[in-house]
Order: sequence, then structure tokens, then C-alpha cells
Amino acid sequence: MPRTSVAEHTARVRTLLNAVSQRPVEQVALSDALDRVLAHPIRTPIDLPPFRNSQMDGFAVRTVDLARTPSNLPLRGAIPAAPGTPGPLRPGHTVRVMTGAPIPDDADAVVPVEHATVQGTTVTFTRKPDVGEFVREAGSDLAGSEPLLSDGFRLAPRHLAALAAAGVASVPVRSQVRVAVISTGSELAAPGELLAPGQIYDANGPALAAAVRTADALLVDEHRVVDDTAAFARALDASCAAGAEILLTSGGISAGNYEVVRELLEPLGAHVDTLAMQPGGPQATAIYKGVPVVCFPGNPVSAQLSFMLFIEPVLREAAGLHARQPEPRTLAEPLTSVAGKRQFRRGVGLPGGRVAPVGGPSSHLVAAMAASDMLIDVPIDAVTLDIGTRVETWNL
Amino acid sequence: MPRTSVAEHTARVRTLLNAVSQRPVEQVALSDALDRVLAHPIRTPIDLPPFRNSQMDGFAVRTVDLARTPSNLPLRGAIPAAPGTPGPLRPGHTVRVMTGAPIPDDADAVVPVEHATVQGTTVTFTRKPDVGEFVREAGSDLAGSEPLLSDGFRLAPRHLAALAAAGVASVPVRSQVRVAVISTGSELAAPGELLAPGQIYDANGPALAAAVRTADALLVDEHRVVDDTAAFARALDASCAAGAEILLTSGGISAGNYEVVRELLEPLGAHVDTLAMQPGGPQATAIYKGVPVVCFPGNPVSAQLSFMLFIEPVLREAAGLHARQPEPRTLAEPLTSVAGKRQFRRGVGLPGGRVAPVGGPSSHLVAAMAASDMLIDVPIDAVTLDIGTRVETWNL
Repeated sequence: MPRTSVAEHTARVRTLLNAVSQRPVEQVALSDALDRVLAHPIRTPIDLPPFRNSQMDGFAVRTVDLARTPSNLPLRGAIPAAPGTPGPLRPGHTVRVMTGAPIPDDADAVVPVEHATVQGTTVTFTRKPDVGEFVREAGSDLAGSEPLLSDGFRLAPRHLAALAAAGVASVPVRSQVRVAVISTGSELAAPGELLAPGQIYDANGPALAAAVRTADALLVDEHRVVDDTAAFARALDASCAAGAEILLTSGGISAGNYEVVRELLEPLGAHVDTLAMQPGGPQATAIYKGVPVVCFPGNPVSAQLSFMLFIEPVLREAAGLHARQPEPRTLAEPLTSVAGKRQFRRGVGLPGGRVAPVGGPSSHLVAAMAASDMLIDVPIDAVTLDIGTRVETWNL
Repeated sequence: MPRTSVAEHTARVRTLLNAVSQRPVEQVALSDALDRVLAHPIRTPIDLPPFRNSQMDGFAVRTVDLARTPSNLPLRGAIPAAPGTPGPLRPGHTVRVMTGAPIPDDADAVVPVEHATVQGTTVTFTRKPDVGEFVREAGSDLAGSEPLLSDGFRLAPRHLAALAAAGVASVPVRSQVRVAVISTGSELAAPGELLAPGQIYDANGPALAAAVRTADALLVDEHRVVDDTAAFARALDASCAAGAEILLTSGGISAGNYEVVRELLEPLGAHVDTLAMQPGGPQATAIYKGVPVVCFPGNPVSAQLSFMLFIEPVLREAAGLHARQPEPRTLAEPLTSVAGKRQFRRGVGLPGGRVAPVGGPSSHLVAAMAASDMLIDVPIDAVTLDIGTRVETWNL
């Protein structure tokens, strides 16, 4: 019976990838910053808005000039929303202002065009505005040097709007982890090829490549190799040359006769283990020419699950994101598991905080996994779980 | 008082963009399909798994040969997980099989290595397996020609895994809508430039460009132009030449003196309107050289809100996604609004289905919007809303 727990292997992978998860910070232009995660908090270097300006198309006035209404004030020009500093507003006068235009220092309110009447060079006002009406004071959204965004924010359009408004042209983000994905197995064919007897299509390459991208990391290389140590070594070498910081492999680490990953990496000191989990029991870690290698089993459900459990948390931490948290739900159907193995079953969320299992425990059920939207974390000693049992779930 | 409702302008924009939202379907390779939306349902062309295979590293047997235990069976070779068709399993014999290897037709169970003992060419079994134990039947995950994925699915790694396993090398998706973003305003500077008096940074260009990308569309061109009709026309022409199917503009459509978008497009038949909403009242639609133009006001909060209300739903429909639905919440703080205007206030979601407003109603509060995570939809006739009032909210 395997003894290594999921937590122990998680700790082993974290230790192996400790240096990788400490990322240097780089500046990226705002146009490349969508969905990246801020590495440091950002303060606005300027007042937002940067100067006193008009909220409306209208007329800037001194409210004291409109003590009696109706009042007629001579109109002295117009201030566009354009570069320039407005001259002073002489007492007893008004000036046309566009939305966003700077307001003369002496003006203390704006009267919208629809509440004034212009005849020639005279404007008639029928109501005295409040002091400050339709005036946006400098810094009224956020004063200069105040905190604008916290670190750990995944940048959405509204964050980019605020950064741009503050004149921030680039932002600090953690550099993306460079990952290579290598599928091993003589039985593997590429999707699109004709399937010979005994062959299956490689699901792990496409799935792990996509998972790397989804986890904010950079996919730098991809290989599919037959069960031949020389071919496998060439793929690893190529991925190292491509700058991979993590080499992810699938297949070739269980107890069979043609375990190419074990054959190459065990002599180099790989740690090969069998975890008390299902699916995904066989797992290994190694270092190949200085680069950490994390080895998953070849069954597609096992490989995807292994990524979620052991790699995704490291990549999230590297990007500066918080760890995902499980959500408690209740079983909508009974479930049987295997004592001594922590099962991760696939399921669909149902209304009322429930979850229904989809498909059985076996690691080849890729279609059932595609039809699921969460994992059900079945405790290691559970054997039969009744309807209504409270379980932890993880969104897929 | 403006009379055009949000719903009326929504309908106008939808009509304008009707042809654009009907997308041709294109095939994309699996490696480019992450996060794209399936245009048609996909059936698996093959059985999953494609052939009967072993779930374990072990020994394929006929269960009748193990009626009495312990039984000793002569070992006849090994079947790798590799291309090839296994020969028949002679009665009274066993063959070593690797995980995923095809199983001889005559075998009806697999005994894992850890439950058998090999001595020379003889294998000793101490337990009779059940018929079918550790055998994965062809099609046991999904039978050939059965539905694998429905249309409307946004493809995640687990979907790509299932498609790849089924040998599907490319998938049908709707072609992405090609959008150009043009910010107008003589007061606009690019983030990173030094700000002259009267200038502000262009927040709309970066925000709308990112919003286009977030909405599954393709940003094909970006411009920032001063309030000059010739410059604006050049930007529109360049965007048309870049293949834009929607021209999104910000600024230049309100009641001021320097409204470049109105100046150029009204003579061409633009529909300029003021909506009964806040912020974002001034709106326009036009057709420029055969290409639809949707014009937003220049204030950054207005422009972002306009995108969410009028463009994002069209782009979601074009991609094949369902419309987003509002979520009811209760106000954690009182709110005052303006009668006759439907306000969209910014807020943050709180536990217990509550929402707290962030900042005031004004359209320049770009930092407050960045600090928010939802919009509060305040009904057109509401003036004062007490704590606990039920409101519709939209996630940002």
C-alpha cells in the first residue's frame, strides 16, 4: 500500500521548484499588461483628475455674480478641452467651458448650457448654482501619491483605465515561468493522424500545454516521444535549450517494462514514488542538467489532476496570486472510494451547493472529465459516502 | 430631459451591428483553441478508449484459468503500450501487459503485478479476479459518434484533452470580430508622456483595447487623435484599411464647440442622441464608408460603461456565448440618484449578497471604478434608495 501522501508530494515538488517560484520583477507596457498580476502596489504619480475642470459643456461663473437671478453676464470667449492654461475670469463675466476643460481659478461653478441662454455676447442665468457645482476638483478622484492599485491584482480593463489615466505607462509584474511539456509513450499518435492498432492519441500534450497557459506561465517547448531513452533525452535537451525552467513529463514512470522516464532519470537520482491517491498514484521528480523535472503518469485524467495539484499552485504563487481554496458541497449521489487512497473524482456542481459525480474513478475517462466542472476531494479513509455527505470540491 | 432609454439605444446598436454579429465559422488547430468557443457540437469520431486495454501494469488472464487458487500459469511474453495487435492468449497461459497496452481478445481480466509472483516463466496467482477487472473496454469512456462537447463551450484544458484523445485536430469556432479603437480629444496625452497644462492622459484607448480583447474580439487598430476632422478621418480610414468591422470612438459627441466626431459624422447621417442614463448620456452611431461606427462619450467611466452595455453583449453573441445576467444584491449603504436617469454606479460586493457603492456618480472617477468589482443598476425613477434596497448588479 503506497504511503506517500498528496501533501508530502506537494511539499517535495514545492521544494524542487522553490527557486523557480521566486520570480524577478519586470516592467511590461500597459498594452501587454492585460491579465498580468501586479507585483508591487501602484500609487498615482499625479492628481486624478490632474487639474480643476468642468463636468459639463457650459459656462464657468463666480457664484457671487449670480446672487440675483435672472442675471446677464458678458461672455468672454471659450475654453476648449485642450492643452493650455485659462486666463483669469474677470468679476462679472462668464466664459464658455467644454466638458473636461480647465476652469479659471476665479470661477467656482459651472452652469450647463441647457440652463443658460446666450444672446450675442450676453449669457442669461435664471438660477444661482451652488459653489462647486459641476466642477471637478484636482485630485477629487484620487490625490497624487495615493495608492491606486494593490499588488496581487490581475489587471482587467478598468485597472488599465486607471493606470493610463494616472500616466503609468508600464507596470511591474513577475516574469512568467518558462515551462516545457513532454509526452512519452510509443503508443501515442498526434491528433489528426490515422490511428494504427494499439495506438491512442496524445491528450496530455495539448491538455498540459493549455494548462500551462491558463496558469499564467509561458509554454516554451512541446514534445511527443516514443519510449526510447535517447529520444527522451533529446527532447529534454531541446527544452532546456529553449530556456525551460520546469520540464513537465507524462508517462513512463510506473511499474511496467518500458518506463522511459524512469530509465533515463532514475540513474540521475530521480525520486520515483507511488502516492496514496487515485488517479495519479505514480509520480516522480528529478533534476536534469540543472533543470527541475516533474513527472506525471500518462493517463490523461491523472496527468491533468497532477498538474492541478502539484504545478498550478506553484505557478500561481510565482505569478503572485493567492492559492485557490476548495469549496464545501454536499453529495447529490452516493459515492464509493478505496480505503487508503485519496480519490479526486470528477463532478458537476448543482444548485443548492450540491455536487454529482461524473463517471467512475478510472484515470482514462477523459470525456467524463470534459463533462465535469469540478473535482470532488474524497478523504483517504472514506469508503462509502452517502447522499448529503459534505465534501471539499475544486473548480476545474 | 433626455428621452432615449438604454434599451432603445441597445436595440439601435444591435441593429447596426447585426451583420457583424453573424460570424462565419472557421476551423482552428487545437493548439490555438484555448478559450475559444465551440461553434458546433463535437462527436467523438472514435471509441474512447479506442481499444480494449489494461488499466494496470500486470498480467492478462482468462478468469476460468484461475478457478482454483493459488494457480500457476506459464508466462508468454509481454505486450507493451505501443502500436501493434496482440496475438491470442492460449488457454492456461498468461501474458504480461503494461498500463494502456491492448489486451488479447481471449483475456477477460488483468491481475496487477503487485498481486502476482513471477518465478522464471511461471506466474503464481493467489486470487481469482472478477471478469473485466482492470480491463478498460473500448468505448467505455465514450462510444464512437457519441456527443463529446456541446456548442457554446469555452474550451478549457480538460476539453482540449478530450478532443485530442478523440483525435480531433481542429475545431469549429466563430471568427473573431475585428475592432478598432479611436480616442479623440486635443487634451489627450499618451501615458508616459509629460503632461502639459490642460492635458490629461488617454485612459479610453488602453481600457477599450483591453475590453475588446477580454470580449473575445480582435483589436486590429488603435488611434489617438486631436479634435481635427481631417485627423479623425485619417484614423477612421486607417482602421477601415486594417479590416475593422466595428469602429469604436470615444469623445467628441456632446454639446460643446469642438465635437470632432459629430462634425465629421453628422453630415454622413450619424444618429447622435442623449440617453436617459448616467454616466454615459451622449451616444452616437454612424456608418463610415460602409463600416459601423459606435461612438462613446469621452469620460473614461462613461466609455467603459458604454462598452459593457452596448458592445460587449454583441461581441459575446458573435462568439457564441450567452448574454451575461445581472445578479440581485441588497444595498449596504444608502444611495441617491437622479430621477429620469438610469444610473450605473460602481460598487464592491460584500458577503451576504450585499453591495456597497464606491465613489459618486460622476464619470471621471476612474480610480473609484478600478477599486470596484461590480456595477449597480439604479432604476430610472429611483431618487433615494435605503440600506437593504434590492438592486440588480453586474460583475465588472
